[in-house]
Amino acid sequence: MSWIDDPAFTADQPFGPQTLPYGVVELDDGPSVAVRVGEHALPLRPVAASLGERLAEVVSAGSLDPLLAAGRPVWSELRARLIELVGASAAPAGGRLLPLDRQRPVLPFTVGDYVDFYSSRHHAENATRIFRPNGVLPPNWTHQPIGYHGRSGTVVVSGTPVVRPSGQRRGESGPVFGPTTALDIEAEVGFVCGGPVARRVPVSAAAEHVFGVALVNDWSARDIQAWESQPLGPFLGKSFATSISAWITPLEAFAVARVAPPALPHPPMDYLAEDQPWGLDLTLAVRWNDTVVATPPFAEMSWTFAQQLAHLTVNGATVRPGDLFASGTVSGPEPRQRGCLLELTWGGREQLTLADGTTRTYLADGDTVVITATAPGEDGSVVGLAEVSGTVLPVHGPGDHPERR
Amino acid sequence: MSWIDDPAFTADQPFGPQTLPYGVVELDDGPSVAVRVGEHALPLRPVAASLGERLAEVVSAGSLDPLLAAGRPVWSELRARLIELVGASAAPAGGRLLPLDRQRPVLPFTVGDYVDFYSSRHHAENATRIFRPNGVLPPNWTHQPIGYHGRSGTVVVSGTPVVRPSGQRRGESGPVFGPTTALDIEAEVGFVCGGPVARRVPVSAAAEHVFGVALVNDWSARDIQAWESQPLGPFLGKSFATSISAWITPLEAFAVARVAPPALPHPPMDYLAEDQPWGLDLTLAVRWNDTVVATPPFAEMSWTFAQQLAHLTVNGATVRPGDLFASGTVSGPEPRQRGCLLELTWGGREQLTLADGTTRTYLADGDTVVITATAPGEDGSVVGLAEVSGTVLPVHGPGDHPERR
Repeated sequence: MSWIDDPAFTADQPFGPQTLPYGVVELDDGPSVAVRVGEHALPLRPVAASLGERLAEVVSAGSLDPLLAAGRPVWSELRARLIELVGASAAPAGGRLLPLDRQRPVLPFTVGDYVDFYSSRHHAENATRIFRPNGVLPPNWTHQPIGYHGRSGTVVVSGTPVVRPSGQRRGESGPVFGPTTALDIEAEVGFVCGGPVARRVPVSAAAEHVFGVALVNDWSARDIQAWESQPLGPFLGKSFATSISAWITPLEAFAVARVAPPALPHPPMDYLAEDQPWGLDLTLAVRWNDTVVATPPFAEMSWTFAQQLAHLTVNGATVRPGDLFASGTVSGPEPRQRGCLLELTWGGREQLTLADGTTRTYLADGDTVVITATAPGEDGSVVGLAEVSGTVLPVHGPGDHPERR
Repeated sequence: MSWIDDPAFTADQPFGPQTLPYGVVELDDGPSVAVRVGEHALPLRPVAASLGERLAEVVSAGSLDPLLAAGRPVWSELRARLIELVGASAAPAGGRLLPLDRQRPVLPFTVGDYVDFYSSRHHAENATRIFRPNGVLPPNWTHQPIGYHGRSGTVVVSGTPVVRPSGQRRGESGPVFGPTTALDIEAEVGFVCGGPVARRVPVSAAAEHVFGVALVNDWSARDIQAWESQPLGPFLGKSFATSISAWITPLEAFAVARVAPPALPHPPMDYLAEDQPWGLDLTLAVRWNDTVVATPPFAEMSWTFAQQLAHLTVNGATVRPGDLFASGTVSGPEPRQRGCLLELTWGGREQLTLADGTTRTYLADGDTVVITATAPGEDGSVVGLAEVSGTVLPVHGPGDHPERR
């Protein structure tokens, strides 16, 4: 029987001993790397001495950055040691648990480059049809994981409020400026990179460069995005905030969740061919205020993280520890499996009714969105991804500009 | 008479005492902030004691990062002290000059987010016409500075070789994979951000958040870009390398180079209106091997850096020290004022003849491109931007993939 006294720390719960995600908590002597056990955090700096010299160094830091840089052998060794440590009957010297509900979430690593993909065929097809009723997917889509670079400086940790962004959008007689009238979410899965700086990472080596997995909400202002995106893609419609889980679940926790992605109409090019499948059988849940409005299935994604990383680096671009790439909106074939409001309301044309009886198309000020996800673990256990949440705040403060043509 | 013995350190030369750009040089005890004087570098850590405590701290670092974070009052104070120091008749204690031709260029700051704009109307119109003979500018272009995020992890310092990137491009019967056949440059002007983290920076405060100016070569693989860019914009066609000058010229050096940008067909929205002009009268020169193929005029840009920064942050996105944004390709109205090969060869349809008699459309392996620029300074002096150069290397090394469908 484990020394950890938390009813949520069991194999049938998402943050039991099969999961052990990493994050950062604030201690009196500064931030510390921590591991999540149920609804508690176990700070690792205070128990570093029991982990041996090599591991002590990476867990004594104030962020996950040194751990991300350390690479797969250290990641595996640390996870193995922590599984022992949390399974022991007695607490290690210095071991103490902090209830998560009293912790302020901390962005646990320095984000390098942030790339956002577009790898759900259902999402891409729906988005195409919403804007052009007879539209078809661009021909490149089935040949490569389409993506773009986002703004890493505005990646924020779960719980950070999101101020409604202002910008230009189309008006009846020309563009107007003002707060977005179409604030959306995108429920995505993010991959946190680590290990040595590398370029041309083959699909077969991608897992050596991915430390772990988090949930991402790629907040989007659809009206700003629609007006700005030709010809260079999304910019201010996306750059105001991108939220990520406070806890990063190690890739190793998903060993039994691996599935082959759905087949594309033709085999992938050599550099995108997988010799083993890297799709993941995650089920997301999108809660809007108190209503679950969608349960997107990640197993439906057409391109895996291994293919995305291989594509991202095949031109010679480097990948560094702390780089983050996200899957793109996760949507499944069913209407209630769609991971953004653009799709759920079919471009704002169909109202959604929430549990409190109110109706919505896009987000109202004060609304809260929480995204969670689970995957099958070993021996019938459940592996969790930590929630990513955010509440919409109204436009406010100095520097806001009145609406005008 | 100054103690600095360098015939290039005169007011009629681009790196005389009116310019004083900042960079980093390698010393025996590690990298040091330095200022460029003619064709020499003056390392500042060895003379830090003569600058006073506050300035000593920022110039004793191994990169420009602390100086960027310090903000405008410190930037002004340091520049004033350095003008005195380089104008004195005797060298300060510890003052020694290193010839630039024996220095390896160093990327002088940590790049935060990298944004690339598209603010030359001539370039945007030419690019539109090359791809669609009857094409017109997208309607958003005259209302906002269009831009997108690039990859900050592959921003490299001038002199870094550029390996020809591979990727997918259109083939006769579907996409093919292989080295780009349309490797291009984009001659641009980059702005290095500093000062406090800020959001919603008004045009009138933009100069408080811009430390200095550099040249940028936004290397581009046109065939990769053309195939991937719909609907999310450029990605692998740009992310393999972006080169920047090793020396950053302070914004203050451009006081007399300021000009109003050309008028757009309608007044800018309030948040983009300038109360004083922030266009800059820079003239670029693009040298391909030993031939100057273009002299793009930066005064022709329709959107200024102040408008670009105001736009970039108006949605609430933060700007941090080390963020870099570039102007987009600088092109003027005349054919030999075009800042990329796409335009100079009209989409690869017209050959350019170099001084050695060889002809080109796009870059060949072994080609070198050097971009330089000057602006008018006070009292008839000339203010320089340090060159940005790069030589194309062939595809090589492990991880390259054979061409196949």
